Amino acid sequence: MNIKDYIEHVGRAARAASREVAAASTAAKNAALHAMAAEIRAGRDELIKANLRDVEQARSEGLDAAMIDRLTLTAKGVEAMAQGLEQVAALPDPVGEITELKRRPSGIQVGKMRVPLGVVGIIYEARPNVTADAAALCLKSGNAAILRGGKEALASNQAIAACVREGLAIAGLPESAVQVLETTDREAVGHLVAMPQFVDVIVPRGGKGLIERISREARVPVIKHLDGICHVYIDADADIDKAVRIADNAKTQRYGTCNTMETLLIDQAVATRVLPRLAKIYFDKGVELRGCEQAMALVPQIHAASEEDWATEYLAPILSVRLVDGLDSAIAHITKYGSQHTDAIVTENYSKALRFLREVDSSSVMVNASTRFADGFEYGLGAEIGISTDKFHARGPVGLEGLTSQKWIVLGNGEIRS
Amino acid sequence: MNIKDYIEHVGRAARAASREVAAASTAAKNAALHAMAAEIRAGRDELIKANLRDVEQARSEGLDAAMIDRLTLTAKGVEAMAQGLEQVAALPDPVGEITELKRRPSGIQVGKMRVPLGVVGIIYEARPNVTADAAALCLKSGNAAILRGGKEALASNQAIAACVREGLAIAGLPESAVQVLETTDREAVGHLVAMPQFVDVIVPRGGKGLIERISREARVPVIKHLDGICHVYIDADADIDKAVRIADNAKTQRYGTCNTMETLLIDQAVATRVLPRLAKIYFDKGVELRGCEQAMALVPQIHAASEEDWATEYLAPILSVRLVDGLDSAIAHITKYGSQHTDAIVTENYSKALRFLREVDSSSVMVNASTRFADGFEYGLGAEIGISTDKFHARGPVGLEGLTSQKWIVLGNGEIRS
Repeated sequence: MNIKDYIEHVGRAARAASREVAAASTAAKNAALHAMAAEIRAGRDELIKANLRDVEQARSEGLDAAMIDRLTLTAKGVEAMAQGLEQVAALPDPVGEITELKRRPSGIQVGKMRVPLGVVGIIYEARPNVTADAAALCLKSGNAAILRGGKEALASNQAIAACVREGLAIAGLPESAVQVLETTDREAVGHLVAMPQFVDVIVPRGGKGLIERISREARVPVIKHLDGICHVYIDADADIDKAVRIADNAKTQRYGTCNTMETLLIDQAVATRVLPRLAKIYFDKGVELRGCEQAMALVPQIHAASEEDWATEYLAPILSVRLVDGLDSAIAHITKYGSQHTDAIVTENYSKALRFLREVDSSSVMVNASTRFADGFEYGLGAEIGISTDKFHARGPVGLEGLTSQKWIVLGNGEIRS
Repeated sequence: MNIKDYIEHVGRAARAASREVAAASTAAKNAALHAMAAEIRAGRDELIKANLRDVEQARSEGLDAAMIDRLTLTAKGVEAMAQGLEQVAALPDPVGEITELKRRPSGIQVGKMRVPLGVVGIIYEARPNVTADAAALCLKSGNAAILRGGKEALASNQAIAACVREGLAIAGLPESAVQVLETTDREAVGHLVAMPQFVDVIVPRGGKGLIERISREARVPVIKHLDGICHVYIDADADIDKAVRIADNAKTQRYGTCNTMETLLIDQAVATRVLPRLAKIYFDKGVELRGCEQAMALVPQIHAASEEDWATEYLAPILSVRLVDGLDSAIAHITKYGSQHTDAIVTENYSKALRFLREVDSSSVMVNASTRFADGFEYGLGAEIGISTDKFHARGPVGLEGLTSQKWIVLGNGEIRS
């Protein structure tokens, strides 16, 4: 079978299975998730053995240490994967939820019912645990899943897929409800994202290059996660202690995550009270600061920021710092240079807090909290399939609800339209 | 200026205006809508004069009577347009609505805020009243709009646009919040749908050819409305009087609308009681019936249906009729031949009603009501910008809420992530 035929075969099977899982009871879906967890625990040694083959191959190909670290599955990692499946089983089932049922003058009752999207395609890179996570989220939300992992993790992913299939079979659900592609050929992705008849949405999880390629080629909707150029704005009316705590945490708690602050904006009125204090904390932790002229005048160790710095997601111990002339300037800077991911204001002023919440057009907007909270677990979604920086459909962390849609339902008693 | 530069110029102005209308108060938006209505009423004679130019041009080009009817603006039509604007002003403002605010173990409160999509592009055909309707819905939902009407209605649309601009100016809102393209060149549409930096969503309102072309060329999300192959299934446990009333209304109340029934499915167990009665009603109203062999055996005047009939949206006094072997067969038929638009079951059986509601994957699913109710006004949306047959984002009639998205908001008190 050539690759195109193979992907179509997978797509057709997914479409058929999607109807069964959409109609499956909560009990059957949860039973499958628990059975998958049991299979993964029971298969721990084989999973680690398969993973070792991937890791050795990766070493022989000279992959870097960070990549190998993400790829490696330990006994602890296997247990975490099983627990992740059980956590999804414990989440409320979003499918079938009826809301906003209202009686209309015609006599009919009109409301909305939450329903699965259908078939979800997920394209991801090294981490093999995504295979179990994504399978669980798609199944619980009543969708069929087509998973395409990275080529470095092929053996690990196939071993996890076997546990997932076994769990589905034990619960009496179709095995093709979750299919892990057996090829990691680039061509396969091209076909997968261009089959609207079989795939309803694509979630790419990986680097910017992958996401841009998929957005370009896709003929189905894509839940995109592009840059995270996140800002903290310390307002003139900020509580300085909160401001220092939040600006420290937002930058230094982890450097490589998408919700890490990349630019700090400070109202000129409080800059002398807050910037030297913060600069000392950052320098002690080895963070390089790049600032505007006013910031450099206050703290001479700050390097000059270029225009490019304001638009850069460092994902590193580097922070750009700009003094601004009040809330409007701060919002204008965020609008111009931000990536609509996560932005926070630190202020005790009620009106400015509300204006920031409303006018900053980002997927997460915060008052007096660290940008690092922008995360499915922290938001109480239980798990996340990705973070969307789009405006259409879901914004920000996407959990079970983001993998569903709402249809209209009408409950009548013989009404006709006149 | 060439067409590409012109469309980019319009797009840039729309993006800038979108920030202002997103932040505009409900009072300012409503003032603009009332001012537009007043301008339209005051400009009635000029509107009708401009429309007459379009109509004369259309006649000289030999457009058919139905097209000219849709194009023509009467004094009554002008008043209806003004009232439509006032009705949108009376709808609740969806922007800024905060829901689901919950406190998390970390101390932060997490919730969702409803926000505009940004810039909405609407591409439509003959009816000039769409210009006012679309402007109103986009403005009220806090979006900037770029409207591209049909070439037949160019003079009418420009005259309406002048009233809309004047209304915006009176309320102190930017005139480029609603821009009606001054060209109807096909090339303009190609550019409009491929500018993700300036346009957030495209709503095509028109024939299938237009929608398919736009879906193919678009680089931004499209709220698509494809076929309406709607079904009524009369179950074995149906109340026969309700069934006859609904099946009559769903087909014959209007033939040319997308929510009109195109295929009637009847459980074999009740076919003798319901089909001859219905056939008489249909024949009296001049509806041609095309059926399966069993249907033909019951009512000899029924013609044979071909495989193609089951997948046809007639938009005409033709109905296909099939006898089925219970609920599963009915759902299987709808899944195979339907267009996921609107489908209804007539039954008094509780479990079958719930199964139909859940398992039929259409944007509107009904129990004991006519498919003709699938409409923004009947659903209480106040107005609709279109009907979506997609699953992503909004399904079914799209009102103000479908032109918005939800972002996450976090209300903290100095919390940091540990």
